[in-house]
Amino acid sequence: MITLQLIGIGTGNPDHLTLQAVKALNAADLILIPHKGDEKADLAQLRQDICADVLTRDVEIAEFTLPVRDPVITDYIDRVNHWHDAIADCWMTEINARPGVQNVALLVWGDPSLYDSTLRIAERVSKRVDLQLNVVPGITSMQGLTAAHQIPLNALGGAFQVTTGRQLRDHGWPADADRLVIMLDGHCAFQTLEPEGIHIWWGGFVGMPNEITISGPLTEVAQKITETRQRAKDDHGWIMDIYILERG
Amino acid sequence: MITLQLIGIGTGNPDHLTLQAVKALNAADLILIPHKGDEKADLAQLRQDICADVLTRDVEIAEFTLPVRDPVITDYIDRVNHWHDAIADCWMTEINARPGVQNVALLVWGDPSLYDSTLRIAERVSKRVDLQLNVVPGITSMQGLTAAHQIPLNALGGAFQVTTGRQLRDHGWPADADRLVIMLDGHCAFQTLEPEGIHIWWGGFVGMPNEITISGPLTEVAQKITETRQRAKDDHGWIMDIYILERG
Repeated sequence: MITLQLIGIGTGNPDHLTLQAVKALNAADLILIPHKGDEKADLAQLRQDICADVLTRDVEIAEFTLPVRDPVITDYIDRVNHWHDAIADCWMTEINARPGVQNVALLVWGDPSLYDSTLRIAERVSKRVDLQLNVVPGITSMQGLTAAHQIPLNALGGAFQVTTGRQLRDHGWPADADRLVIMLDGHCAFQTLEPEGIHIWWGGFVGMPNEITISGPLTEVAQKITETRQRAKDDHGWIMDIYILERG
Repeated sequence: MITLQLIGIGTGNPDHLTLQAVKALNAADLILIPHKGDEKADLAQLRQDICADVLTRDVEIAEFTLPVRDPVITDYIDRVNHWHDAIADCWMTEINARPGVQNVALLVWGDPSLYDSTLRIAERVSKRVDLQLNVVPGITSMQGLTAAHQIPLNALGGAFQVTTGRQLRDHGWPADADRLVIMLDGHCAFQTLEPEGIHIWWGGFVGMPNEITISGPLTEVAQKITETRQRAKDDHGWIMDIYILERG
């Protein structure tokens, strides 16, 4: 029986860690850290730094190379499912290489529930080994964004929809929602909207020392956001960004 | 100039506190704790317990009696706005009673961005006193619910809508969303839906020692949830619950 802990670590501010996360990391006897290649190396380093900061006992840390999505698979869902299979193989390889291991931890960016693969990969692993799963919630980038802008997610008593850049680009503004949170948007999908009457609150690297925030009417700030985003991505090698849109 | 810190504390598990929240509480020279009357006294007590646990210096803690909403005001939005005005008055009274105070902290259940009043009350206070606002994100009940059920919020690459029991009851299932998170539902609004084909993941007191979770097809578990909820509310004097619905 393996205990697998999926530990939300927040969005890059080491102080986003909860006391529960600190305890969970210290209860592990193996911590798996994905390595995504040079340009995202600072994410692996951040996880290493968090471990160094909060571990009060000697816990083995194993870095593994994260597989990349297979561009030959054209269907998005198929491609992601295939990728999750490959990551599950990596986890199993690391676990099987250490027969005595009982408590394995993964540091999950943000929260394991929100546009994250680890729960789906854990489900695959649970079919191959007797698994006790433990999910430790973490601060999401939605909350990092609203904290940075000091705004609520919802209008008073109102609803909001959380969706992806891909959904916004392919299907337009969803019905029955005047406020949207857009995640996983590599291509500034807000540019596909008719900008009149829309307000945007955008953030890059929210919660981190290099946090950038821009807000305003989309008619006025759209270009500033796309330019700022591109410059930050060029400077840094990668970017994580998120935004809220409101219409009406 | 007053620094006002709105500090998310998570959903009742003291270990939900982030390291950032612990630092923010210790930087305060006044902590305001709302007291909602006897039946919710354990929430005030929980905030007191959290302070006792994490404060490493002497910080004044002031409890104030939270006003109640005026039932004479029939319009929901008007009633809530009037209530927020009254709470802002309470904060000002406590702050004005202590002329030397510079750093005031409030412990916010969950996260300040999600169906919470403190940002809106802080905006009112900022019109009366020179205010530096600091928002510290906290674990939300959405994340407490998904951690308890070990499920993602979103289907793979999919959208979800976050809304209230009132919206669901008054307007039905929103368009363009197959997955909903329902909050602020005192009356089990899922009962107003045609239950065929809907799956529910429900949780009461998520993250707390008395956490209760029920999930399954709505056709099978709706009655069990309403009965369990009522019993828990009777036993405890109050309940906080939240659920996810998925159709199709």
